[in-house]
Formats: sequence, structure tokens, C-alpha cells
Amino acid sequence: MAVKIQIKNGGVTAAAGFVAGGVKAGIKASGGKDLALLCSDRPCAAAGTFTANSIRASSVDWCEYRLPSKAIRAVICNSGCANACTGKRGVKDTAAMATLTARECGIDIDTVLVASTGVIGHFLPLDMIATALPGLYDGLEADGGSAFAEAIMTTDLVKKEAAVDVVRGRQRYTIGGCTKGSGMICPNMATMLGFITTDASIAPSRLSAVLKRVVDRTFNNLTVDGDTSTNDMVLVVANGASGIRITDAAQLADFEAGLFTVCNDLCKQIAADGEGATKRVEILIKGGATEAEAKMAARAIANSNLTKCALFGNDPNWGRIACAVGYSGAKFSDEKMSIRLCGFPVFRNLQPLKFDQKAAHEALRQKVVTVAVDLGVGQAMAIAHTCDFSYDYVKINAEYHT
Amino acid sequence: MAVKIQIKNGGVTAAAGFVAGGVKAGIKASGGKDLALLCSDRPCAAAGTFTANSIRASSVDWCEYRLPSKAIRAVICNSGCANACTGKRGVKDTAAMATLTARECGIDIDTVLVASTGVIGHFLPLDMIATALPGLYDGLEADGGSAFAEAIMTTDLVKKEAAVDVVRGRQRYTIGGCTKGSGMICPNMATMLGFITTDASIAPSRLSAVLKRVVDRTFNNLTVDGDTSTNDMVLVVANGASGIRITDAAQLADFEAGLFTVCNDLCKQIAADGEGATKRVEILIKGGATEAEAKMAARAIANSNLTKCALFGNDPNWGRIACAVGYSGAKFSDEKMSIRLCGFPVFRNLQPLKFDQKAAHEALRQKVVTVAVDLGVGQAMAIAHTCDFSYDYVKINAEYHT
Repeated sequence: MAVKIQIKNGGVTAAAGFVAGGVKAGIKASGGKDLALLCSDRPCAAAGTFTANSIRASSVDWCEYRLPSKAIRAVICNSGCANACTGKRGVKDTAAMATLTARECGIDIDTVLVASTGVIGHFLPLDMIATALPGLYDGLEADGGSAFAEAIMTTDLVKKEAAVDVVRGRQRYTIGGCTKGSGMICPNMATMLGFITTDASIAPSRLSAVLKRVVDRTFNNLTVDGDTSTNDMVLVVANGASGIRITDAAQLADFEAGLFTVCNDLCKQIAADGEGATKRVEILIKGGATEAEAKMAARAIANSNLTKCALFGNDPNWGRIACAVGYSGAKFSDEKMSIRLCGFPVFRNLQPLKFDQKAAHEALRQKVVTVAVDLGVGQAMAIAHTCDFSYDYVKINAEYHT
Repeated sequence: MAVKIQIKNGGVTAAAGFVAGGVKAGIKASGGKDLALLCSDRPCAAAGTFTANSIRASSVDWCEYRLPSKAIRAVICNSGCANACTGKRGVKDTAAMATLTARECGIDIDTVLVASTGVIGHFLPLDMIATALPGLYDGLEADGGSAFAEAIMTTDLVKKEAAVDVVRGRQRYTIGGCTKGSGMICPNMATMLGFITTDASIAPSRLSAVLKRVVDRTFNNLTVDGDTSTNDMVLVVANGASGIRITDAAQLADFEAGLFTVCNDLCKQIAADGEGATKRVEILIKGGATEAEAKMAARAIANSNLTKCALFGNDPNWGRIACAVGYSGAKFSDEKMSIRLCGFPVFRNLQPLKFDQKAAHEALRQKVVTVAVDLGVGQAMAIAHTCDFSYDYVKINAEYHT
């Protein structure tokens, strides 16, 4: 009896027992929704992964200190202000945001997780949050995941949600989530913010271990611009409302497969919506000596501005890809290393291959393009997700702050 | 009696005993000068530093194999074709380019250094080089440094030359050079190509040691786009035509000061002419625990796309600078770390400082802007050179190849 991972609609409220919502609190200059709340009807096992940046927003510290946990009830998140680089006042403000939320929800402060995203170096407008919270709480709905996903967006153009049912025989539970992220995205906690819920029941320590493995294979191989943010985190909460308990190794494997599907789908959505992106790019590495080296090669290509500009220009300029492999530090075979671009073999044995330039140029116009590299020294693989690099990336980031 | 480093006009032919020139061989699609030759009237001590990329053009291997040397007579360089990722044929073509040059100059093949720059993955048009060489040789002039500097350009908008006289008492000699580089420029041999000449006499091993130290403090702290090229090298040749011999420690220090001045000046010229640059950016780090850590911080800021887009937009968005310091891996003091942007104190004690946003916005409109960071943990310093990141960077690199 094999497990089935069934894709379904929805995000953080796809799983049973969760309610969510999002409102306009006035934090975002654009005037969009900017305050999001997720609540569970019972205590959740919860875990998180956090940014590798040494300068971290106090919300990151707040969550990491409390996780893993078996008692989480709510997640509050604002967009429009990262509350990062805000010193002791920033720390107090994060605690105040948790306190306000706990009071509104009638729960303990230590059962509230806090996330922020937006401009660095500005103080959190707590008064706006306090004013907006009652309306946000009153508007929580069992299908409010979409409003939640919308309220965490910054420069994102579209909201990003994914959900699956994990089915084995008569057992069925749901994993769903949403994410925001469009710029300042780099390997090692690339996602800015990701929120995953499930109605399965799982021990916090196991949830934490599974999340780390999945994030390492998904969000950590995603890059838009090579800048690792101060606020990145992925949180997962499991409330057990489905009645299914994840206990044995087979069940854990099923859960991991489901979580991977959700996270991988969210990654692709972030790459496709990268700041200024006109197309999504998937970097497929095989033949690496080790998985770490395969990742190094994948990330070097995914972070190469020159490669990404060429892809924006629909230019099959594979020399820049070879160059990035060369400086990645990954071992490769001079004879066996090869590159395929959108399926066209372009480079092998350190020599250019003849290919139909015009057809390759046309293939590069697609919404999803692939760069496949065989390092030719082993059997390790890696995938990286990114996007092309356009005028609009510069425009967005030259104009974002002021 | 102190040494004087006197700035003067000129480049590779500023020093006595060198002739140079540049012609149109037809390699560059743009139709500009694309073949450059430098000759010395006597054998030169010579040294080089080379790209850290594992995929290297055969011209890099050719030079590294022969250096340091005491017998170099000529340097031949083409632009428009990098002859990189061209396999065994590329290796043969580099040797053929040296052979053709040696024959034309009537010198031994092993006294010829070869450099190439341009598109990766195309074969060298040897016929064009063979046809152009006699005219190039016949046109060599004692003031031909400028034509040489022009012929090595690719996407560069201006040629880049610098020269100094090193004077102590009655002793005087010259160091001059030129460089090309505009994109695919990253720390660790950032320069693409640099050629330095001097009419001082110095032992090859000493020349090599001094060059490495100077390059580490100049070209290796320069970045335009974070891509380390396949073809980078800096070559220095010393022919002794001034009659001055560098032997004792004081003389070596003078020579190093002169070489530093030339290389640092060339770095600034590359940063100012970075692809699409509207301004040059100098990153000044102090207070580092070690020089290596100060460099890590400097390079992280210099490579941050987000920071560079903000500078293009004249936006005093220091949060992105703090973020880059955070992910650089350099140790810093939470209390003492501070950031100044164009002289405006913007961040200290992990908190934003009040500053005149409008005045800072105006200051960022200048042609040269500074980002000064005190890490607050030690006494180590580092400088990095870069430029802002504009629409035109994307345009140039989306359209360069096809």
C-alpha cells in the first residue's frame, strides 16, 4: 500500500482546526493588507528554521527561543516593517506584539510566534497593530489562509500557497502552507517567511528534524539575489486535528514526502515571482562527488548575475554557466563535465558543442527554463531554484525604500 | 630622505625601453581595436597573478607556466574572444598566437606572454591575428601604451591607464600600467586583465612576491558583479632600462608603494567604469578582528545587489548594508558596530540613528560615494572598490553575446 501525495487547493487553513485572516493595519505604505494572524483550536507541536545572518530581527530570536514547542496556539505576522536593526526597542516591540496578540486571543504569551518582514531599520508601529488586532481576530476564518498569505506579501506580486493531502489506505491528513519572498533571497534560509500547518500529530523533536531536512532540500537551494535576509524563517505547526499520529518510520517518511511537496511547490512560486523575474529557472546538478559539492555548483549558477542577465535576454550564453561552475569550488571532470541548456547539449569535454542557436534562443523564451550540469565525478545531485535578472529587479530595489 | 611617488600620465609605455601598439584585427564584432602588443628592448623580469576559477583559459595556463621569468620580451593580447572553454584546440591556439608573435618579433616563443578577453566558448580567429600582426609590429611606438590600452577593452567605455615616478634622492624610475575590466569582476583576481611595466630592475622572485601583496590589497578587493572570470590575470614586467636596481629592503618598500599607487588607481578606474555604473563606491572597513574578517565584510557589502541598487537610486537604505555585514561571517560588536554612509552616521548599537535623509539622498548623487563600517572588535582594516547597480548592467549583460 503506497502513500499518495494529493495536491489540493489552499494554504495555512487547508488543514483542519486552523483559522486565519489578514487585514490592513496601515503599516505598508502601499496600503495593502499587512497584518496576518493564524490560530489553532488546540495546542500545536511546532518547529522552525531560521536565518543564517548574524544580524537577526528580534522576531527570529523570539521564535527560535520558543521552538521546538508542543504548545503553540497562534502566529502573528506583519509586513511593511522588518523590525530589524532596531536594538533593544525592537526586542521590546516584538514582545509587545506577542502580548497584544495573546491578550486578544486569550492565550498565553509563550504560545504566540511572531514574524515581521519589510524595511530594515524602522521601528514597529505598535499602535497600528493594537488598533487592527480586534478586527483581525474577529475576522478569522477556516478559509482565511488566502487573506493571511496576502497580508504577509511585500514586493511579491502574487500570494503563494500550496497544500497536499497525505493518504495511505484509510488514513488521510493535510499539510498546507504559504510563503512570502521576492528579493533578499539567498541559499541558507532563502524564504524570507514560510508558514506551514498540518492536522497530523507529531512530536516536536521529530517535526523539527523533518523540517530541517526538507528545508535543506528546498528553501535552502533557492536564490533570487544572493542577499540573506535578517528576518528569514520557516515555521511549521501541527495540531493533530485529523486524529492521525505520526509515530513509525513509514509514517515519518510519508509526512516528509508531503512536507517536501508543499515546500518545493512554494519554492517554485517564489522563484517565479522573484523581483523583476520574467521566467523561473531550475538548476539541475548531477554527477557531483558529494551532495555538498553538487549544491555548491547549483548555488554558484543560481547566484551568477551574468548568467541570469543572459537568461533574461534569451541568450544561450552557456560560457557564463561554465564559468560559474569553475569558481563554485565543486570538483568536476574535465572530460565528462557537460552542460545542457533547455535540453540543448552545449558544452562537453571543456569544448563547445554545435547546437541550433536560434532554437535555443526560442526555448529560452519559455516561462520555465532548465540548466542541467553533469559534473561527471560521482553520483550526487542537487537542485536550485532561481529566476532571471531583469531591468525591473534594479527598478524595484532602487525605489523600494524612499 | 623620503620616497616620493609622483603621479604622471601614461600607461604601459610610461617606463623607458617599452614599445606598444594596438590595431583592429576584426575579432571584435564592434569593429574596434582588438589586438595589442607590448615589447621590451631587453629581457624582463616578469611575474603574474591569476584567476581563482577552476575553469581557466589556456592563456592563463600559458603565462602561469612561464612565470616568474627573467627573460620575457613581449605580451600579446586580444579582445573580443576569451578563448576559454575551447578544449585542446584552445590550448593549441594560444601556443599558435605566441608562435606567430615570436616569429614576427624575432624572439623566442617562451619569452612571449599571451592574454585573451571576450566571449567564452568561441575559438580564436587565428587567421585574423596572423594577418594583423605585421602591421601591429610595424606600428609599435614608445608612446603606444594608449593604443594598447584601447585594444584590450571589451565592454569598457574608457581606457584605463596609470603611471608613477618613484623618486628617492637622485634615483628615479617609472611604473606604469593599464587594465581592462567592466563586468565578470569579483574579489580574488578581479581585474580581468592588468599589464604593468617598470624600468626598474628587480629579481623575478621578489617581483612576484611584491605583486602578490599589492594585488591582494587592490584588485582582489574589487567587485562589479561577483562573477570571477576564466581569464583574469595581472602581469608585471621589469626591464631595468632606468639603470636602477631594486635590491635592499628600503628600495623594495619604495617599489611596493609605487606599484600599489598604480594598481589602486587602476582599480578605481575599473569600479568607476563598471558595467552600467553611474557612480563609484568605496567600502571602508575598520575595527575588524583580523584583516581577513575586515575583507569578508567589505566584500559582502561590495557584492550585495540590494545595496548597490539602493545606491543607484540614491537611497540611504543602510539596512541592506547592515544585513550584508550580518551575513558576511565577520565578527562585530553589537554595541560598537557602526555604519556611516557618505559621512552620515546612520547605525550604531544595533539601532538606527537619526540623520538628514534629504541631505544623505543628495550626497548619494555624487560620482564617488563611501560606505564606512566600524566592526568595533579590533584594529584590522580593509577597503573594497565597487560601483552601483543600474538598469544598464542588465541591458549590457542581456545583450552582450548574441
